[in-house]
Amino acid sequence: MAEKDAGSRVRDALRIDGELPDPGSTPVGPGKKPKALAKLESAGTRLSALQEALYAEGVGGGQRRVLLVLQGMDTSGKGGTVSHVLGLVNPMGVRYAGFKQPTAAERRHHYLWRIRKQLPAPGQIGVFDRSHYEDILVPRVSGLLTAAERRRRYAELVAFEEDLAGAGTTVVKVFLHISPEEQLKRLKARLETPEKYWKYNPGDLEARAHWPAYQEAYADIFKRTSTAGAPWYAVPADHKWYRNWAVAELLIETLAELGPEFPEPGYDVDAELKKLKGVGAPG
Amino acid sequence: MAEKDAGSRVRDALRIDGELPDPGSTPVGPGKKPKALAKLESAGTRLSALQEALYAEGVGGGQRRVLLVLQGMDTSGKGGTVSHVLGLVNPMGVRYAGFKQPTAAERRHHYLWRIRKQLPAPGQIGVFDRSHYEDILVPRVSGLLTAAERRRRYAELVAFEEDLAGAGTTVVKVFLHISPEEQLKRLKARLETPEKYWKYNPGDLEARAHWPAYQEAYADIFKRTSTAGAPWYAVPADHKWYRNWAVAELLIETLAELGPEFPEPGYDVDAELKKLKGVGAPG
Repeated sequence: MAEKDAGSRVRDALRIDGELPDPGSTPVGPGKKPKALAKLESAGTRLSALQEALYAEGVGGGQRRVLLVLQGMDTSGKGGTVSHVLGLVNPMGVRYAGFKQPTAAERRHHYLWRIRKQLPAPGQIGVFDRSHYEDILVPRVSGLLTAAERRRRYAELVAFEEDLAGAGTTVVKVFLHISPEEQLKRLKARLETPEKYWKYNPGDLEARAHWPAYQEAYADIFKRTSTAGAPWYAVPADHKWYRNWAVAELLIETLAELGPEFPEPGYDVDAELKKLKGVGAPG
Repeated sequence: MAEKDAGSRVRDALRIDGELPDPGSTPVGPGKKPKALAKLESAGTRLSALQEALYAEGVGGGQRRVLLVLQGMDTSGKGGTVSHVLGLVNPMGVRYAGFKQPTAAERRHHYLWRIRKQLPAPGQIGVFDRSHYEDILVPRVSGLLTAAERRRRYAELVAFEEDLAGAGTTVVKVFLHISPEEQLKRLKARLETPEKYWKYNPGDLEARAHWPAYQEAYADIFKRTSTAGAPWYAVPADHKWYRNWAVAELLIETLAELGPEFPEPGYDVDAELKKLKGVGAPG
Protein backbone atom coordinates (compact mmCIF):
# COMPACT_ATOMS: atom_id res chain seq x y z
CA MET A 1 0.00 0.00 0.00
CA ALA A 2 1.37 3.38 -1.02
CA GLU A 3 -0.53 4.83 1.92
CA LYS A 4 1.61 3.24 4.59
CA ASP A 5 3.38 6.48 5.39
CA ALA A 6 0.37 8.71 5.86
CA GLY A 7 1.92 9.66 9.19
CA SER A 8 0.22 10.87 12.30
CA ARG A 9 -0.06 14.63 11.77
CA VAL A 10 -3.80 14.81 12.42
CA ARG A 11 -3.74 12.27 15.22
CA ASP A 12 -0.90 14.12 16.94
CA ALA A 13 -2.73 17.44 16.67
CA LEU A 14 -6.09 16.18 17.92
CA ARG A 15 -5.01 13.72 20.62
CA ILE A 16 -6.39 14.98 23.92
CA ASP A 17 -3.73 16.16 26.29
CA GLY A 18 -5.23 18.43 28.89
CA GLU A 19 -7.31 21.34 27.60
CA LEU A 20 -9.68 20.80 24.69
CA PRO A 21 -9.35 23.00 21.59
CA ASP A 22 -11.95 25.69 20.88
CA PRO A 23 -15.02 24.03 19.30
CA GLY A 24 -14.93 26.58 16.47
CA SER A 25 -11.22 26.20 15.78
CA THR A 26 -9.39 24.29 13.05
CA PRO A 27 -6.15 23.26 14.79
CA VAL A 28 -4.80 21.22 11.86
CA GLY A 29 -5.69 20.96 8.19
CA PRO A 30 -8.02 23.17 6.16
CA GLY A 31 -9.31 26.31 7.84
CA LYS A 32 -11.93 27.15 5.24
CA LYS A 33 -14.99 25.30 4.03
CA PRO A 34 -14.30 25.01 0.26
CA LYS A 35 -10.86 23.55 0.82
CA ALA A 36 -12.16 21.16 3.48
CA LEU A 37 -14.89 19.89 1.15
CA ALA A 38 -12.41 19.32 -1.66
CA LYS A 39 -10.07 17.53 0.70
CA LEU A 40 -12.88 15.35 2.04
CA GLU A 41 -13.64 14.22 -1.49
CA SER A 42 -10.09 13.05 -2.11
CA ALA A 43 -10.00 11.59 1.40
CA GLY A 44 -12.97 9.48 0.35
CA THR A 45 -10.93 7.85 -2.39
CA ARG A 46 -8.08 7.04 -0.03
CA LEU A 47 -10.33 5.82 2.77
CA SER A 48 -12.22 3.63 0.35
CA ALA A 49 -9.05 2.07 -1.02
CA LEU A 50 -7.65 1.39 2.45
CA GLN A 51 -10.94 -0.06 3.60
CA GLU A 52 -11.10 -2.37 0.59
CA ALA A 53 -7.63 -3.69 1.36
CA LEU A 54 -8.60 -4.25 5.01
CA TYR A 55 -11.74 -6.07 3.88
CA ALA A 56 -9.76 -8.22 1.46
CA GLU A 57 -7.28 -9.02 4.23
CA GLY A 58 -10.25 -10.16 6.34
CA VAL A 59 -11.53 -12.41 3.55
CA GLY A 60 -8.03 -13.88 3.42
CA GLY A 61 -8.23 -14.77 7.11
CA GLY A 62 -6.83 -11.59 8.66
CA GLN A 63 -8.30 -10.57 11.99
CA ARG A 64 -7.67 -6.82 11.94
CA ARG A 65 -10.49 -4.31 12.09
CA VAL A 66 -11.14 -0.77 13.28
CA LEU A 67 -13.72 0.53 15.73
CA LEU A 68 -14.61 4.21 15.59
CA VAL A 69 -16.23 5.36 18.82
CA LEU A 70 -18.19 8.61 18.49
CA GLN A 71 -19.14 10.50 21.62
CA GLY A 72 -20.38 14.05 22.08
CA MET A 73 -23.21 16.17 23.44
CA ASP A 74 -26.57 16.13 21.64
CA THR A 75 -26.36 17.70 18.15
CA SER A 76 -22.57 17.38 18.12
CA GLY A 77 -22.89 15.59 14.79
CA LYS A 78 -22.44 11.89 15.45
CA GLY A 79 -25.08 10.96 12.87
CA GLY A 80 -23.78 13.51 10.37
CA THR A 81 -20.28 12.09 10.71
CA VAL A 82 -21.56 8.59 10.00
CA SER A 83 -23.40 9.83 6.92
CA HIS A 84 -20.64 12.02 5.50
CA VAL A 85 -17.53 10.05 6.45
CA LEU A 86 -18.56 6.41 6.62
CA GLY A 87 -20.82 7.08 3.65
CA LEU A 88 -17.62 7.39 1.62
CA VAL A 89 -16.79 3.68 1.86
CA ASN A 90 -18.40 0.46 0.68
CA PRO A 91 -21.28 -0.51 3.02
CA MET A 92 -19.97 -4.11 3.01
CA GLY A 93 -17.06 -2.89 5.07
CA VAL A 94 -19.00 -0.82 7.60
CA ARG A 95 -20.83 -1.97 10.69
CA TYR A 96 -22.89 0.76 12.31
CA ALA A 97 -24.42 0.56 15.77
CA GLY A 98 -26.24 3.27 17.68
CA PHE A 99 -26.68 2.97 21.44
CA LYS A 100 -29.61 4.62 23.14
CA GLN A 101 -30.79 4.32 26.74
CA PRO A 102 -30.49 0.61 27.53
CA THR A 103 -33.79 -1.27 27.34
CA ALA A 104 -35.19 -3.26 30.23
CA ALA A 105 -33.88 -6.45 28.63
CA GLU A 106 -30.42 -4.95 28.19
CA ARG A 107 -30.36 -3.82 31.81
CA ARG A 108 -30.64 -7.41 32.94
CA HIS A 109 -27.17 -8.02 31.52
CA HIS A 110 -23.74 -6.57 32.18
CA TYR A 111 -23.50 -3.19 30.41
CA LEU A 112 -20.91 -4.53 27.96
CA TRP A 113 -23.26 -7.30 26.83
CA ARG A 114 -25.05 -5.22 24.20
CA ILE A 115 -21.77 -3.63 23.13
CA ARG A 116 -20.08 -6.94 22.41
CA LYS A 117 -22.91 -7.97 20.12
CA GLN A 118 -22.21 -5.03 17.81
CA LEU A 119 -18.47 -5.31 17.36
CA PRO A 120 -17.12 -5.19 13.80
CA ALA A 121 -16.07 -8.38 12.03
CA PRO A 122 -12.51 -8.80 10.68
CA GLY A 123 -11.95 -6.42 7.77
CA GLN A 124 -14.71 -4.04 8.81
CA ILE A 125 -14.80 -0.53 10.20
CA GLY A 126 -17.26 -0.55 13.07
CA VAL A 127 -18.88 2.72 14.13
CA PHE A 128 -20.40 3.27 17.54
CA ASP A 129 -22.80 6.21 17.67
CA ARG A 130 -22.57 6.58 21.44
CA SER A 131 -20.94 3.61 23.10
CA HIS A 132 -19.82 1.87 26.27
CA TYR A 133 -18.76 5.32 27.51
CA GLU A 134 -22.40 6.26 28.04
CA ASP A 135 -22.35 3.68 30.82
CA ILE A 136 -20.02 5.77 32.87
CA LEU A 137 -21.05 9.19 31.60
CA VAL A 138 -24.75 9.14 32.39
CA PRO A 139 -24.65 7.38 35.77
CA ARG A 140 -21.80 9.65 36.81
CA VAL A 141 -23.64 12.86 35.95
CA SER A 142 -26.74 11.45 37.63
CA GLY A 143 -24.68 10.81 40.77
CA LEU A 144 -25.35 7.08 40.68
CA LEU A 145 -21.76 5.89 41.02
CA THR A 146 -19.48 6.15 44.02
CA ALA A 147 -15.87 7.11 43.44
CA ALA A 148 -14.85 3.49 43.95
CA GLU A 149 -17.43 2.26 41.46
CA ARG A 150 -16.23 4.80 38.94
CA ARG A 151 -12.65 3.67 39.31
CA ARG A 152 -13.67 0.07 38.85
CA ARG A 153 -15.63 0.93 35.73
CA TYR A 154 -12.75 2.90 34.19
CA ALA A 155 -10.49 -0.07 34.75
CA GLU A 156 -13.08 -2.34 33.18
CA LEU A 157 -13.38 -0.13 30.10
CA VAL A 158 -9.63 -0.01 29.63
CA ALA A 159 -9.40 -3.79 30.02
CA PHE A 160 -12.25 -4.25 27.55
CA GLU A 161 -10.43 -2.20 24.94
CA GLU A 162 -7.19 -4.04 25.61
CA ASP A 163 -9.03 -7.26 24.88
CA LEU A 164 -10.31 -5.77 21.65
CA ALA A 165 -6.78 -4.75 20.68
CA GLY A 166 -5.62 -8.29 21.42
CA ALA A 167 -8.25 -9.60 19.01
CA GLY A 168 -7.04 -7.30 16.23
CA THR A 169 -9.28 -4.28 16.76
CA THR A 170 -7.83 -0.78 16.64
CA VAL A 171 -10.11 1.49 18.64
CA VAL A 172 -10.33 5.16 17.57
CA LYS A 173 -12.15 7.26 20.18
CA VAL A 174 -13.45 10.60 19.04
CA PHE A 175 -15.12 13.32 21.09
CA LEU A 176 -17.09 15.67 18.85
CA HIS A 177 -16.63 18.94 20.64
CA ILE A 178 -19.31 21.60 20.14
CA SER A 179 -20.00 24.83 21.97
CA PRO A 180 -23.23 25.41 23.90
CA GLU A 181 -24.00 28.31 21.52
CA GLU A 182 -23.79 26.05 18.48
CA GLN A 183 -25.90 23.42 20.25
CA LEU A 184 -28.59 26.03 20.90
CA LYS A 185 -28.70 26.88 17.16
CA ARG A 186 -28.93 23.24 16.18
CA LEU A 187 -31.65 22.40 18.70
CA LYS A 188 -33.63 25.40 17.44
CA ALA A 189 -33.22 24.28 13.83
CA ARG A 190 -34.63 20.88 14.79
CA LEU A 191 -37.68 22.51 16.34
CA GLU A 192 -38.23 24.80 13.37
CA THR A 193 -38.10 22.09 10.69
CA PRO A 194 -40.87 19.45 10.74
CA GLU A 195 -38.60 16.98 8.95
CA LYS A 196 -36.17 17.30 11.83
CA TYR A 197 -38.68 17.00 14.70
CA TRP A 198 -37.75 13.33 15.11
CA LYS A 199 -34.18 14.27 15.95
CA TYR A 200 -35.26 16.35 18.93
CA ASN A 201 -35.89 14.98 22.36
CA PRO A 202 -37.06 17.04 25.36
CA GLY A 203 -34.42 15.19 27.37
CA ASP A 204 -31.78 17.06 25.32
CA LEU A 205 -32.56 20.19 27.32
CA GLU A 206 -32.06 18.40 30.61
CA ALA A 207 -28.66 17.16 29.49
CA ARG A 208 -27.92 20.70 28.34
CA ALA A 209 -28.77 22.04 31.77
CA HIS A 210 -26.01 19.80 33.14
CA TRP A 211 -23.44 20.96 30.59
CA PRO A 212 -20.60 21.65 33.07
CA ALA A 213 -21.17 18.30 34.79
CA TYR A 214 -20.95 16.54 31.44
CA GLN A 215 -17.77 18.40 30.48
CA GLU A 216 -16.27 17.42 33.82
CA ALA A 217 -17.32 13.81 33.38
CA TYR A 218 -15.81 13.76 29.90
CA ALA A 219 -12.57 15.30 31.17
CA ASP A 220 -12.37 12.45 33.66
CA ILE A 221 -13.07 9.86 30.98
CA PHE A 222 -10.31 11.26 28.77
CA LYS A 223 -7.88 11.18 31.65
CA ARG A 224 -8.76 7.68 32.84
CA THR A 225 -9.29 5.85 29.57
CA SER A 226 -6.80 7.35 27.13
CA THR A 227 -4.20 4.68 26.57
CA ALA A 228 -1.27 4.43 24.17
CA GLY A 229 -3.22 1.97 22.04
CA ALA A 230 -6.57 3.75 22.22
CA PRO A 231 -6.21 7.45 22.96
CA TRP A 232 -9.06 9.96 22.86
CA TYR A 233 -9.17 12.58 20.12
CA ALA A 234 -11.12 15.85 20.34
CA VAL A 235 -12.52 17.05 17.04
CA PRO A 236 -13.71 20.67 17.06
CA ALA A 237 -17.22 20.24 15.71
CA ASP A 238 -18.89 23.64 15.45
CA HIS A 239 -17.98 23.54 11.74
CA LYS A 240 -19.46 20.42 10.18
CA TRP A 241 -17.03 20.61 7.26
CA TYR A 242 -14.06 20.57 9.61
CA ARG A 243 -15.50 17.74 11.70
CA ASN A 244 -16.02 15.54 8.63
CA TRP A 245 -12.57 16.20 7.27
CA ALA A 246 -10.91 15.56 10.63
CA VAL A 247 -12.68 12.26 11.34
CA ALA A 248 -11.94 11.04 7.82
CA GLU A 249 -8.25 11.85 8.31
CA LEU A 250 -8.13 10.15 11.72
CA LEU A 251 -9.47 7.01 10.07
CA ILE A 252 -7.11 7.29 7.11
CA GLU A 253 -4.05 7.71 9.31
CA THR A 254 -5.13 4.79 11.46
CA LEU A 255 -5.75 2.50 8.51
CA ALA A 256 -2.60 3.62 6.73
CA GLU A 257 -0.55 2.77 9.79
CA LEU A 258 -2.13 -0.69 9.87
CA GLY A 259 -1.08 -1.01 6.23
CA PRO A 260 -3.68 -3.60 5.22
CA GLU A 261 -2.48 -5.97 2.53
CA PHE A 262 -4.41 -7.71 -0.20
CA PRO A 263 -3.96 -11.39 0.70
CA GLU A 264 -1.82 -13.80 -1.24
CA PRO A 265 -4.01 -16.09 -3.32
CA GLY A 266 -4.76 -19.41 -1.65
CA TYR A 267 -4.59 -21.12 -5.05
CA ASP A 268 -2.25 -21.38 -8.05
CA VAL A 269 -3.06 -18.37 -10.23
CA ASP A 270 -1.45 -19.77 -13.41
CA ALA A 271 -3.14 -23.13 -13.03
CA GLU A 272 -6.51 -21.44 -12.60
CA LEU A 273 -5.90 -19.23 -15.63
CA LYS A 274 -5.08 -22.33 -17.66
CA LYS A 275 -8.25 -24.04 -16.46
CA LEU A 276 -10.23 -20.93 -17.39
CA LYS A 277 -8.80 -20.91 -20.91
CA GLY A 278 -9.88 -24.51 -21.28
CA VAL A 279 -13.53 -23.77 -20.54
CA GLY A 280 -15.91 -22.62 -23.22
CA ALA A 281 -19.60 -21.99 -22.70
CA PRO A 282 -20.53 -24.15 -19.74
CA GLY A 283 -23.06 -26.96 -19.68
CA MET B 1 -43.59 12.49 0.66
CA ALA B 2 -43.76 13.72 -2.94
CA GLU B 3 -42.37 10.34 -3.97
CA LYS B 4 -45.47 8.36 -3.12
CA ASP B 5 -46.50 7.98 -6.73
CA ALA B 6 -43.26 6.67 -8.14
CA GLY B 7 -45.32 3.84 -9.61
CA SER B 8 -44.22 0.36 -10.49
CA ARG B 9 -42.83 0.69 -14.00
CA VAL B 10 -39.48 -0.91 -13.25
CA ARG B 11 -40.92 -3.53 -10.94
CA ASP B 12 -43.52 -4.50 -13.56
CA ALA B 13 -40.89 -4.78 -16.27
CA LEU B 14 -38.42 -6.84 -14.24
CA ARG B 15 -40.77 -9.11 -12.26
CA ILE B 16 -40.01 -12.67 -13.30
CA ASP B 17 -42.79 -14.28 -15.22
CA GLY B 18 -41.49 -17.25 -17.16
CA GLU B 19 -38.45 -16.61 -19.37
CA LEU B 20 -35.64 -14.41 -18.10
CA PRO B 21 -34.56 -11.38 -20.15
CA ASP B 22 -31.26 -11.45 -22.04
CA PRO B 23 -28.41 -10.70 -19.57
CA GLY B 24 -27.10 -8.00 -21.92
CA SER B 25 -30.48 -6.35 -22.47
CA THR B 26 -31.97 -3.20 -20.97
CA PRO B 27 -35.69 -3.99 -20.92
CA VAL B 28 -36.73 -0.79 -19.15
CA GLY B 29 -35.02 2.54 -18.49
CA PRO B 30 -31.75 3.83 -19.91
CA GLY B 31 -30.17 1.81 -22.71
CA LYS B 32 -26.83 3.60 -22.71
CA LYS B 33 -24.16 4.03 -20.07
CA PRO B 34 -23.89 7.84 -19.79
CA LYS B 35 -27.63 8.23 -19.29
CA ALA B 36 -27.73 5.37 -16.77
CA LEU B 37 -24.91 6.93 -14.73
CA ALA B 38 -26.65 10.32 -14.68
CA LYS B 39 -29.91 8.68 -13.67
CA LEU B 40 -28.21 6.70 -10.91
CA GLU B 41 -26.91 9.94 -9.46
CA SER B 42 -30.35 11.49 -9.22
CA ALA B 43 -31.70 8.16 -7.99
CA GLY B 44 -29.23 8.44 -5.14
CA THR B 45 -30.85 11.65 -3.96
CA ARG B 46 -34.34 10.14 -4.03
CA LEU B 47 -33.26 6.88 -2.41
CA SER B 48 -31.44 8.77 0.31
CA ALA B 49 -34.47 10.96 1.06
CA LEU B 50 -36.84 7.99 1.19
CA GLN B 51 -34.46 6.06 3.40
CA GLU B 52 -34.14 8.98 5.80
CA ALA B 53 -37.92 9.15 6.15
CA LEU B 54 -38.09 5.40 6.76
CA TYR B 55 -35.38 5.71 9.38
CA ALA B 56 -37.16 8.61 11.07
CA GLU B 57 -40.38 6.60 11.05
CA GLY B 58 -38.47 3.82 12.82
CA VAL B 59 -37.16 6.22 15.46
CA GLY B 60 -40.77 7.28 15.98
CA GLY B 61 -41.77 3.70 16.72
CA GLY B 62 -42.63 2.52 13.20
CA GLN B 63 -41.85 -1.11 12.43
CA ARG B 64 -41.42 -0.97 8.67
CA ARG B 65 -38.19 -1.91 6.96
CA VAL B 66 -36.96 -3.30 3.65
CA LEU B 67 -34.87 -6.38 2.96
CA LEU B 68 -33.04 -6.55 -0.36
CA VAL B 69 -32.07 -10.13 -1.21
CA LEU B 70 -29.31 -10.40 -3.83
CA GLN B 71 -28.73 -13.70 -5.55
CA GLY B 72 -26.79 -14.57 -8.69
CA MET B 73 -23.95 -16.67 -10.05
CA ASP B 74 -20.37 -15.81 -9.04
CA THR B 75 -19.23 -12.44 -10.47
CA SER B 76 -22.83 -11.39 -11.13
CA GLY B 77 -22.16 -8.22 -9.17
CA LYS B 78 -23.71 -8.66 -5.73
CA GLY B 79 -20.84 -6.85 -4.04
CA GLY B 80 -20.73 -4.16 -6.71
CA THR B 81 -24.44 -3.53 -6.25
CA VAL B 82 -23.98 -3.08 -2.52
CA SER B 83 -21.14 -0.64 -3.09
CA HIS B 84 -22.76 1.41 -5.86
CA VAL B 85 -26.42 1.35 -4.80
CA LEU B 86 -26.46 1.01 -1.03
CA GLY B 87 -23.40 3.25 -0.96
CA LEU B 88 -25.79 6.04 -1.98
CA VAL B 89 -27.59 6.10 1.37
CA ASN B 90 -26.63 6.89 4.96
CA PRO B 91 -24.81 3.90 6.54
CA MET B 92 -26.98 4.34 9.66
CA GLY B 93 -29.89 3.10 7.62
CA VAL B 94 -28.20 0.10 6.00
CA ARG B 95 -27.59 -3.33 7.45
CA TYR B 96 -25.38 -5.50 5.26
CA ALA B 97 -24.92 -9.23 5.68
CA GLY B 98 -23.01 -11.61 3.44
CA PHE B 99 -23.66 -15.35 3.68
CA LYS B 100 -20.94 -17.80 2.77
CA GLN B 101 -20.86 -21.56 3.19
CA PRO B 102 -22.33 -22.16 6.64
CA THR B 103 -19.71 -22.79 9.32
CA ALA B 104 -19.67 -25.92 11.46
CA ALA B 105 -21.32 -23.93 14.29
CA GLU B 106 -24.02 -22.63 11.97
CA ARG B 107 -24.74 -26.13 10.69
CA ARG B 108 -25.72 -27.23 14.15
CA HIS B 109 -28.74 -24.91 13.92
CA HIS B 110 -31.72 -24.69 11.60
CA TYR B 111 -30.59 -23.02 8.37
CA LEU B 112 -32.70 -19.93 9.11
CA TRP B 113 -30.95 -19.37 12.44
CA ARG B 114 -28.04 -17.38 11.02
CA ILE B 115 -30.40 -15.54 8.68
CA ARG B 116 -32.66 -14.32 11.49
CA LYS B 117 -29.69 -12.83 13.32
CA GLN B 118 -28.97 -10.49 10.41
CA LEU B 119 -32.42 -9.06 9.74
CA PRO B 120 -32.71 -5.27 9.44
CA ALA B 121 -34.05 -3.22 12.34
CA PRO B 122 -37.12 -0.98 11.90
CA GLY B 123 -36.26 1.90 9.58
CA GLN B 124 -33.35 0.13 7.95
CA ILE B 125 -32.70 -1.30 4.52
CA GLY B 126 -31.18 -4.73 5.03
CA VAL B 127 -29.09 -6.24 2.24
CA PHE B 128 -28.40 -9.93 1.96
CA ASP B 129 -25.44 -10.76 -0.28
CA ARG B 130 -26.54 -14.36 -0.87
CA SER B 131 -29.27 -15.45 1.49
CA HIS B 132 -31.59 -18.19 2.73
CA TYR B 133 -31.98 -19.17 -0.93
CA GLU B 134 -28.49 -20.66 -0.91
CA ASP B 135 -29.94 -23.26 1.42
CA ILE B 136 -32.09 -24.69 -1.30
CA LEU B 137 -29.92 -23.80 -4.26
CA VAL B 138 -26.70 -25.53 -3.30
CA PRO B 139 -28.14 -28.72 -1.79
CA ARG B 140 -30.46 -29.03 -4.76
CA VAL B 141 -27.68 -28.77 -7.35
CA SER B 142 -25.62 -31.17 -5.27
CA GLY B 143 -28.50 -33.64 -5.32
CA LEU B 144 -28.86 -33.63 -1.55
CA LEU B 145 -32.60 -32.97 -1.36
CA THR B 146 -35.42 -35.28 -2.35
CA ALA B 147 -38.38 -33.78 -4.19
CA ALA B 148 -40.41 -33.93 -0.98
CA GLU B 149 -37.67 -32.17 1.00
CA ARG B 150 -37.46 -29.48 -1.65
CA ARG B 151 -41.18 -28.86 -1.49
CA ARG B 152 -41.06 -28.61 2.26
CA ARG B 153 -38.19 -26.16 2.10
CA TYR B 154 -39.94 -23.96 -0.47
CA ALA B 155 -42.98 -23.82 1.79
CA GLU B 156 -40.75 -22.95 4.72
CA LEU B 157 -39.07 -20.11 2.81
CA VAL B 158 -42.42 -18.68 1.75
CA ALA B 159 -43.73 -18.91 5.32
CA PHE B 160 -40.56 -17.26 6.63
CA GLU B 161 -41.02 -14.32 4.28
CA GLU B 162 -44.69 -14.07 5.19
CA ASP B 163 -43.64 -13.78 8.82
CA LEU B 164 -41.21 -11.04 7.85
CA ALA B 165 -43.98 -9.20 6.01
CA GLY B 166 -46.18 -9.53 9.08
CA ALA B 167 -43.46 -7.88 11.15
CA GLY B 168 -43.25 -4.93 8.75
CA THR B 169 -40.51 -6.09 6.39
CA THR B 170 -40.91 -5.68 2.65
CA VAL B 171 -38.72 -8.26 0.94
CA VAL B 172 -37.28 -7.37 -2.49
CA LYS B 173 -35.71 -10.41 -4.15
CA VAL B 174 -33.33 -9.74 -7.00
CA PHE B 175 -31.61 -12.22 -9.29
CA LEU B 176 -28.57 -10.62 -10.93
CA HIS B 177 -28.60 -12.30 -14.30
CA ILE B 178 -25.28 -12.58 -16.15
CA SER B 179 -24.26 -14.60 -19.18
CA PRO B 180 -21.61 -17.32 -19.00
CA GLU B 181 -19.53 -15.30 -21.47
CA GLU B 182 -19.53 -12.27 -19.19
CA GLN B 183 -18.71 -14.47 -16.20
CA LEU B 184 -15.69 -15.85 -18.04
CA LYS B 185 -14.41 -12.31 -18.66
CA ARG B 186 -14.88 -11.33 -15.04
CA LEU B 187 -13.22 -14.45 -13.64
CA LYS B 188 -10.28 -13.83 -15.95
CA ALA B 189 -10.03 -10.21 -14.81
CA ARG B 190 -9.84 -11.44 -11.21
CA LEU B 191 -6.98 -13.76 -12.07
CA GLU B 192 -5.11 -11.10 -14.00
CA THR B 193 -5.24 -8.41 -11.28
CA PRO B 194 -3.37 -9.14 -8.02
CA GLU B 195 -5.69 -6.76 -6.13
CA LYS B 196 -8.61 -8.91 -7.22
CA TYR B 197 -7.10 -12.32 -6.41
CA TRP B 198 -9.03 -12.42 -3.15
CA LYS B 199 -12.31 -12.29 -5.02
CA TYR B 200 -11.53 -15.48 -6.90
CA ASN B 201 -12.19 -18.93 -5.57
CA PRO B 202 -11.34 -22.17 -7.37
CA GLY B 203 -14.81 -23.37 -6.39
CA ASP B 204 -16.23 -20.77 -8.78
CA LEU B 205 -15.20 -22.96 -11.70
CA GLU B 206 -16.99 -25.96 -10.24
CA ALA B 207 -20.19 -23.96 -9.89
CA ARG B 208 -19.67 -22.72 -13.45
CA ALA B 209 -19.41 -26.31 -14.67
CA HIS B 210 -22.92 -26.83 -13.31
CA TRP B 211 -24.34 -23.72 -14.95
CA PRO B 212 -27.42 -25.39 -16.49
CA ALA B 213 -28.24 -27.12 -13.20
CA TYR B 214 -28.02 -23.78 -11.38
CA GLN B 215 -30.24 -22.08 -13.95
CA GLU B 216 -32.76 -24.87 -13.55
CA ALA B 217 -32.64 -24.65 -9.78
CA TYR B 218 -33.13 -20.88 -9.96
CA ALA B 219 -36.08 -21.29 -12.34
CA ASP B 220 -37.66 -23.57 -9.78
CA ILE B 221 -36.98 -21.12 -6.96
CA PHE B 222 -38.59 -18.30 -8.92
CA LYS B 223 -41.65 -20.43 -9.62
CA ARG B 224 -42.07 -21.71 -6.07
CA THR B 225 -41.17 -18.69 -4.01
CA SER B 226 -42.46 -15.70 -5.98
CA THR B 227 -45.43 -14.41 -4.04
CA ALA B 228 -47.60 -11.33 -4.45
CA GLY B 229 -45.88 -9.74 -1.47
CA ALA B 230 -42.34 -10.83 -2.33
CA PRO B 231 -41.90 -11.55 -6.04
CA TRP B 232 -38.57 -12.25 -7.70
CA TYR B 233 -37.07 -9.70 -10.07
CA ALA B 234 -34.46 -10.49 -12.74
CA VAL B 235 -31.98 -7.70 -13.37
CA PRO B 236 -29.92 -8.12 -16.56
CA ALA B 237 -26.43 -7.74 -15.17
CA ASP B 238 -23.92 -7.98 -18.01
CA HIS B 239 -23.83 -4.17 -17.97
CA LYS B 240 -22.88 -2.99 -14.50
CA TRP B 241 -24.33 0.48 -15.15
CA TYR B 242 -27.70 -1.03 -15.99
CA ARG B 243 -27.65 -3.34 -13.01
CA ASN B 244 -26.94 -0.48 -10.60
CA TRP B 245 -29.63 1.73 -12.08
CA ALA B 246 -32.21 -1.08 -12.04
CA VAL B 247 -31.62 -2.14 -8.43
CA ALA B 248 -31.72 1.49 -7.27
CA GLU B 249 -35.05 1.95 -9.03
CA LEU B 250 -36.49 -1.26 -7.58
CA LEU B 251 -35.64 0.04 -4.13
CA ILE B 252 -37.00 3.50 -4.87
CA GLU B 253 -40.31 2.18 -6.18
CA THR B 254 -40.61 -0.11 -3.18
CA LEU B 255 -39.87 2.63 -0.67
CA ALA B 256 -42.06 5.16 -2.48
CA GLU B 257 -44.97 2.76 -2.32
CA LEU B 258 -44.42 2.33 1.42
CA GLY B 259 -44.55 6.13 1.62
CA PRO B 260 -42.56 6.46 4.85
CA GLU B 261 -43.60 9.45 6.95
CA PHE B 262 -41.56 11.60 9.27
CA PRO B 263 -43.16 10.92 12.66
CA GLU B 264 -45.29 13.42 14.52
CA PRO B 265 -43.31 14.91 17.41
CA GLY B 266 -43.93 13.17 20.71
CA TYR B 267 -43.66 16.53 22.49
CA ASP B 268 -45.13 20.06 22.28
CA VAL B 269 -43.01 21.89 19.69
CA ASP B 270 -44.06 25.39 20.78
CA ALA B 271 -43.48 24.65 24.44
CA GLU B 272 -40.01 23.33 23.67
CA LEU B 273 -39.21 26.36 21.53
CA LYS B 274 -40.27 28.60 24.41
CA LYS B 275 -38.06 26.63 26.82
CA LEU B 276 -35.17 26.96 24.36
CA LYS B 277 -35.58 30.72 24.17
CA GLY B 278 -35.40 30.85 27.94
CA VAL B 279 -32.00 29.18 28.11
CA GLY B 280 -28.78 31.10 27.74
CA ALA B 281 -25.34 29.63 28.09
CA PRO B 282 -25.85 26.56 30.28
CA GLY B 283 -24.34 25.84 33.63
